[in-house]
Parts: sequence; structure tokens; C-alpha cells
Amino acid sequence: MKLPDRVNIVEVGPRDGLQNEREIIPTGVKLEFIRKLATAGLLNIEATSFVSPRAVPQLADAVDLVQQLPVVSGVTYSALVPNKKGLERALEAGIRRIAVFTAASDTFTRKNINMSIAESLAAFAPVVADARKAGIGVRGYVSTSFVCPFEGDISREQVLDVTRRLLDIGVGEVAISDTIGAASPRDVFDTVGHVLARVPREQIALHFHDTYATALANVLAGLQLGITTFDASAGGLGGCPYAPGASGNLATEDLVYMLERMRIDTGVNLSRLVEASTVIATHLGRRLPGRQSQR
Amino acid sequence: MKLPDRVNIVEVGPRDGLQNEREIIPTGVKLEFIRKLATAGLLNIEATSFVSPRAVPQLADAVDLVQQLPVVSGVTYSALVPNKKGLERALEAGIRRIAVFTAASDTFTRKNINMSIAESLAAFAPVVADARKAGIGVRGYVSTSFVCPFEGDISREQVLDVTRRLLDIGVGEVAISDTIGAASPRDVFDTVGHVLARVPREQIALHFHDTYATALANVLAGLQLGITTFDASAGGLGGCPYAPGASGNLATEDLVYMLERMRIDTGVNLSRLVEASTVIATHLGRRLPGRQSQR
Repeated sequence: MKLPDRVNIVEVGPRDGLQNEREIIPTGVKLEFIRKLATAGLLNIEATSFVSPRAVPQLADAVDLVQQLPVVSGVTYSALVPNKKGLERALEAGIRRIAVFTAASDTFTRKNINMSIAESLAAFAPVVADARKAGIGVRGYVSTSFVCPFEGDISREQVLDVTRRLLDIGVGEVAISDTIGAASPRDVFDTVGHVLARVPREQIALHFHDTYATALANVLAGLQLGITTFDASAGGLGGCPYAPGASGNLATEDLVYMLERMRIDTGVNLSRLVEASTVIATHLGRRLPGRQSQR
Repeated sequence: MKLPDRVNIVEVGPRDGLQNEREIIPTGVKLEFIRKLATAGLLNIEATSFVSPRAVPQLADAVDLVQQLPVVSGVTYSALVPNKKGLERALEAGIRRIAVFTAASDTFTRKNINMSIAESLAAFAPVVADARKAGIGVRGYVSTSFVCPFEGDISREQVLDVTRRLLDIGVGEVAISDTIGAASPRDVFDTVGHVLARVPREQIALHFHDTYATALANVLAGLQLGITTFDASAGGLGGCPYAPGASGNLATEDLVYMLERMRIDTGVNLSRLVEASTVIATHLGRRLPGRQSQR
């Protein structure tokens, strides 16, 4: 069995991890968290989102935060951007990489961003074009790529179709995302294998949630398909704060532990990463679900 | 990729799961737990242990419990047995399947049962012989098959050697066990793959702990090697009770969820299984780490 020698981790804790926390975390605490993530060796950090502050109050400090992001050699910060206005704010603040988001389920896309998939792609096309004109890299999330909470199982043809359409409008990397953490390795082999028959693997990242404890099994399936970019959230931030121990996002610590134990290089220093997560755990006054934080 | 159509789960919750609980659980509660496990479709249940009541006070009711085990069609109960005396008590109580335990690390075996591996095998040989004379099936655990907390990484040659010696004395099934949950899928491919080159896969079971969240990834590796018997503990019982959310044993619910989602038949009804775990969770007054119990 051929496995990659090296994996790129996209750290989504500061954005995807924190966005559901009710208690607003001061910008200074977030910056300390991000600084420690960067010095732990995480080279791709999704730092914040330029969505409406009303929709996500936790990330209302996006401009302020981006302006103060620590410069660390080799580290690229990205931000989620919902539209042209968000892109303008992101560029002004100094962001050099953005992410846009749609889904493989029309129902989910409507409930999440009040557009059909087609409408979301049409809306993003000029944003992506402008970003590319500005020399900015663009990633696209395809939420609910395996199971939708409203529609159930999602067909692999649908995931391929949305992935291709994102690439067609100029997105450079598509993160195929198991938003509710329901996928099994068979789903990964089926759906991602289908996509990889038509799309270069360098353009595909995988984003797993650990709701049913399958995240690392799904990563293994992804590795076996030749995928080398995986998302994770420091400490497993992003789980429902009302279910102690229940995980949302795959914890970066858990991903790093498994990969390094498999002799797959991540470039991440695990104990420094735990120090980063501890900044947030201490501020929130609770343990995070990632296993290294439980010890 | 060829995966098995069906998997046998060995439910170890009543023994391996409960043995570390400090609060003594009444025999009636254990019997209700076991009855619900059996009716959920778990056909192999390790019900208790005939070790010294001083060593494991929680299982001091072994004789009483075994005598009252519910008769459910197709269900076999087993018990851990440390020596001839334990075997006699187990047989008298009515047990029809036993398990013996050694390890792949001499240091661990000495600290755990005060014998070297060779001594433990010599001690078990007459127990296994007597059990077979009585028409009783025997399983053998090889603890610390990947990593030992005292010796570190364990060589695959050592695991193969102990496995073969157990089979040589008449053990029918060997459970290769990741006692501290440190293994990655690469360890499973390496070590278990090495064993399977010399031992029929029908004689090998895998026993994973979820300490670092890798248990289901390790199960996937085992499935890919053709293994069809996996241990698990209802609710993830067996984790350290002082680390909320931290898992010890792989939760049976998590294993069943992944396998059924992969269209691998387990014969287990997940909602009934959750009812079984709830008996213990309610008695202990805390959530168990298995994900289905978190919801």
C-alpha cells in the first residue's frame, strides 16, 4: 500500500472552530492562539471570516484581527469570503488567500446561505475572478458532500459536478466536506474516488468531522486515494459546546498524532500545537474534545 | 478494495469495560446490561472474569452472575480465566468459553500478572488443555501488541511469536490488542500483516482502544487485511473515569455505526445497543464516551 510521505494540514480552528462559540473571544486571545498555531508549524491557517457580523458575531473582529496577524515564515492566512464586499474588506485588511463555500445539497445551501447551489456558484464567480486578478489563491468548500441532514445520502455525481463547477470558475482547491460527520471510509472511497477519476488530486482537500468517531478512518481512506491535504481544527474546536466530549471538527492533534505515528510528515510540533489549543481551552474554561487535550 | 461482508463483534464491556469502575455495580444491573446487549444482537459477550476478587473487586460476583446469565438464542458468554482454579469455578458456574491473557511485552506481563511471557504461557498450557478437554473454546489476548507503556514499540516478530505459542498450546482465537491505544493503521498493516502471512486470519481478532482517536482507522486497516472479528465495549466503557470524554476501549456503538454505514453486516441493532449502554450510564450517573451516547 502506497501512502504519501507528507501531508498538508489546513488549520480551520480560528474560523470554523470558533464561529459557533457563543462567548465572544477577545481579538488578543485569538491572535495568541493563531501565533502559537503558526509557530507549531501549521502553514495554512484559516484565520477568520468576512461574513456579516450579525450572522457570526464571534468573527466580527475580522478586519482588526487580520491586520494584526503575526508574520511567520512560510505561513499563509486565509479567510472565508461570502461576496464581493467581503472580498474587498479581506483584501484591504491584507488577506492573501480566500475561501468560498457552497454545498452538494440544494436544501442545505438554501438553509445555510439562502441560495441554490447554482445561484451560489453564480454569485461566487465574480468574487473568484476578482480574487484571482488580485493574485489571491481561492479554495472552495463543498459542504454535505456525503450526507445532508435534510436530503440524506448525496450522490457522488453531484459532488463531482459541484467540484468541477467550482474549478471552472477559477477555484484552485476544493475541500470536499463531511459537514455532519456521517461519512464512512466506504463513502470516501466511493465519492472521492469518483471525483479523482476526473479531477487532479492536487486540487482536492478533505474536511472531516468526528461526530461518529470516523474522522481518522476517513483520513486513512483519503490517504489511500492519494489525497495529501486535510483540514482539522485545533483541539477539535467546533463541536457542540453542549455535548461534552462530542466532537465536531476533526482535532488537529488527533490528525497529527496518527500521521506522525504513520511516519507521514506534517511539519507540526504536537506539544506546541497543544499549547495553542490550551490558549482557547483556558479562556473558555473547559476541556476541548481533541485527545491530547484530555490527558 | 475487497472488504468483508460481515463482521463478528466480541462485546467486552461487561468485563473489560466494567473492571476499572470503582463503584461496585450490583449483579442485577450487570445482568440487565448483558440481557440488553444480547438482545441487541451481540452474539459473543465477555461477561466477567474469574480472577481474584481482591485484584478486581468489581467482578467478585462472577459465579453468581454467570449462573444467572440470560439464555438468548445464538449468544455465547465467555469469561477471563487466570489459572486452573479460575477455570474450575468458571466451568462449575456454567461458562462455555474462556479467555486467557498474556502480552507481547515481558515488562508489561511482569507488571500485570507477575510472570514473564514464557511463564504465563507455561501456566496457561494446562488451563487451555483442560478447557479443551471440557469442550470449551479458548481465546487468548496478546496485550501491548503494538506499543508497551514500559518498553515502547513492540516488534512484529515478537507478536507473531507469542501468537503462535498461544495457538500451539491450543488457543483457538488470538486477540491482538492495542492496550494503550497508541497504534496507527501503519502499525496494523505492519504487525497484523506479518502475523497473517503465517497464521490463518480466522484465528485472529483485533482489540483496539481509542485513546488517540485512531481505533476506527485501525479497524479499517484490519478489514483491509481481511480480519472479520473485532472487540469493542458498549458505550466505550473502560476509559479512565477521571478524563471526561477520553476513550479507553473502542465503543461498540462507534464500531457498529461505521461498519453498518460501510454496508458490512454486524447483526447488531444500534438503538437497542444504546439502550444497553444507557443501563450502565444511568447507574454511574455519567455520559459514556461512545458517540451515540453523546447525542
